[in-house]
Amino acid sequence: MRKNIVLMTDFGYKDNFIGVIKGVILNIAPNTNILDLTHNIQSQNIKQAAFILDTSYSFFPEGSIFVAVVDPDVGSNRKAIAVKTCNYYFVAPDNGILTYVLEKEKIIEIVELTNPKYQLSQISNTFHGRDIFAPISAYISKGITLNNFGSTVKYNNITKINKPYFNIQDSNHFSGEIIHIDNFGNLITSIQASQIGLENNNLKDWIIEIGVYKINGISKSFADVEENQLLAFIGSSGYMEIAIRNGNAREYMGMNSNIKFNISKS
Amino acid sequence: MRKNIVLMTDFGYKDNFIGVIKGVILNIAPNTNILDLTHNIQSQNIKQAAFILDTSYSFFPEGSIFVAVVDPDVGSNRKAIAVKTCNYYFVAPDNGILTYVLEKEKIIEIVELTNPKYQLSQISNTFHGRDIFAPISAYISKGITLNNFGSTVKYNNITKINKPYFNIQDSNHFSGEIIHIDNFGNLITSIQASQIGLENNNLKDWIIEIGVYKINGISKSFADVEENQLLAFIGSSGYMEIAIRNGNAREYMGMNSNIKFNISKS
Amino acid sequence: MRKNIVLMTDFGYKDNFIGVIKGVILNIAPNTNILDLTHNIQSQNIKQAAFILDTSYSFFPEGSIFVAVVDPDVGSNRKAIAVKTCNYYFVAPDNGILTYVLEKEKIIEIVELTNPKYQLSQISNTFHGRDIFAPISAYISKGITLNNFGSTVKYNNITKINKPYFNIQDSNHFSGEIIHIDNFGNLITSIQASQIGLENNNLKDWIIEIGVYKINGISKSFADVEENQLLAFIGSSGYMEIAIRNGNAREYMGMNSNIKFNISKS
Repeated sequence: MRKNIVLMTDFGYKDNFIGVIKGVILNIAPNTNILDLTHNIQSQNIKQAAFILDTSYSFFPEGSIFVAVVDPDVGSNRKAIAVKTCNYYFVAPDNGILTYVLEKEKIIEIVELTNPKYQLSQISNTFHGRDIFAPISAYISKGITLNNFGSTVKYNNITKINKPYFNIQDSNHFSGEIIHIDNFGNLITSIQASQIGLENNNLKDWIIEIGVYKINGISKSFADVEENQLLAFIGSSGYMEIAIRNGNAREYMGMNSNIKFNISKS
Repeated sequence: MRKNIVLMTDFGYKDNFIGVIKGVILNIAPNTNILDLTHNIQSQNIKQAAFILDTSYSFFPEGSIFVAVVDPDVGSNRKAIAVKTCNYYFVAPDNGILTYVLEKEKIIEIVELTNPKYQLSQISNTFHGRDIFAPISAYISKGITLNNFGSTVKYNNITKINKPYFNIQDSNHFSGEIIHIDNFGNLITSIQASQIGLENNNLKDWIIEIGVYKINGISKSFADVEENQLLAFIGSSGYMEIAIRNGNAREYMGMNSNIKFNISKS
Repeated sequence: MRKNIVLMTDFGYKDNFIGVIKGVILNIAPNTNILDLTHNIQSQNIKQAAFILDTSYSFFPEGSIFVAVVDPDVGSNRKAIAVKTCNYYFVAPDNGILTYVLEKEKIIEIVELTNPKYQLSQISNTFHGRDIFAPISAYISKGITLNNFGSTVKYNNITKINKPYFNIQDSNHFSGEIIHIDNFGNLITSIQASQIGLENNNLKDWIIEIGVYKINGISKSFADVEENQLLAFIGSSGYMEIAIRNGNAREYMGMNSNIKFNISKS
């Protein structure tokens, strides 16, 4: 079975970074299949990267190796780690980027990446994606076991970040934040449908207040509202989204990540 | 022979959409080769997508499976279809996106995609690219025949869109529109060289009037004019294009898609 | 062993150009692995392309075939060439784009691409990436030797471009230019650490003057300075870079490619 390495970074598509990473991987593991999850994570936004990885990884084949590099502290003494879970491998800086996936996956082993034998011979201070993370992912795809890369690290000792903001006032009043804005300008929020029982309630009963805007009721799909109307709906990852049918909610509403809002049931 | 699945969408490269679609495909068909035609179709511009697909598909190997998802009515009751032609497969929403290719290809079978066995177990209302179109393309690449996916649909009953605007006033006077603007700012028009016999006439005899601009004669290549000069030429897909040598015609001329213009022979 | 074809262009990701090139390659060589180095070279910037290729190619597996297309004179009488070196193949317009790599690689053969048998049957005047360079790369990956494509060209007779600007005033005073600005807004300069002996000197002794800005000392990594502080460091390709920790130097400093600056030792 061909092995898959899946890359997620904030490196963008302007430079040779991603191309060079792929060259390094194929030098070590010529038959590996390399995929891009996305390279347009907002620059140095670890929380967004953690969220995107969390809502994506389970769609990939078992055994896939994820390389997640959003790494503002590259070159400092932050650790580099590899994690084996029941179903996948994850290679990343130890800065919290794996927080959400590791809450869900059964962890088998975590190691710190210290053995120079499995890194490029020259390590830069700014591009560990090429020098450390890419080679490690390639060696994993060739069957090298994690214990070769360095010492075990306990789960308790790796860095975690906060969950996306989600506050329960009472059983009818909640608040959340915008965690990601997609290519269409849709606002993906921190509210999971299952968290507040959205599926089990009359969707029409909910009211969302965000900035100067008020949305009455949650729609099932874009087709439930007229063109250019604002709507809220349960997005494809199970999180509530705010959008404009055939329009761009980010541009129209002037919204950004981290903006908070209220949702309540009448 | 390795099978090719070719993706074209308006999903952009900012999100995890394309990455996740590839994960879904490889889960079902691990050895398939996945290619990107482009994911930067203008948001919800079905006509542009139909044009881009039409001018691209024949360059791909026989048997290639095209997944074309520009889908403003996702979640409504618009149909999802798969088409087998003599040379290729096409998987798409039934919104006219396949209009131009199906006018050229010999159609063998069209089916509506209704059998849940060949879709993800949970279908969102907003991301059928992941939940329906990706799995179907993977199953086709594994040799599952179209009749398994749902009932036959007649060609007459699928949605068509208008051809790009092209008007014949008389044998010397025509008008067209800008159908696409490329990465260099070149304006690709709806005028096919073969439609008005451009190849058989003295190229110098044609006059193009667009907005406040007038172009005298059609050039063979950029090298025919000075730097920063406006020119018209027959582009690489057989359509007339308007450009500026070593410059950006869209920016300089302030042009957009759908703008109309006249072309005449003196 | 699977063969790798690596594409670098200024075609961007907006259009179908790159997708179609891959289709053409797979039509000829169905099992070839196609990689993107980058397609966001600044439009028609041959010098930047030459620099990016030079700092990237050696990370790819031996035998890789590079297709480098930044081609402002496509359709003129500029030559198209293929080069075999000890380790790699390069396919490109003869406009200097290969200047820097060919100074490093041992050249075995250079040919002009003239034999129509190894090109598409119809050659456009504007898209030789699709019509000539893609097919040639595919035929090389299938083992066709260069002598089949056209006549030998001497190294002395191919086009070269100037090296990036680097001036030695005396052993303590140098000047350089910004040659590339990356996705993070970091300014990559023409100063190689090895050229001025940066590694062998006290890094703190250097002073960089660029525009109205003055940087005292060269840092080892971003972590050496406070957030939002300007710094200079030796980047991952061995060239000095100017950046802002957790910030965007291009935006903050208002910088562009080609801007010159001084560096001196106190």
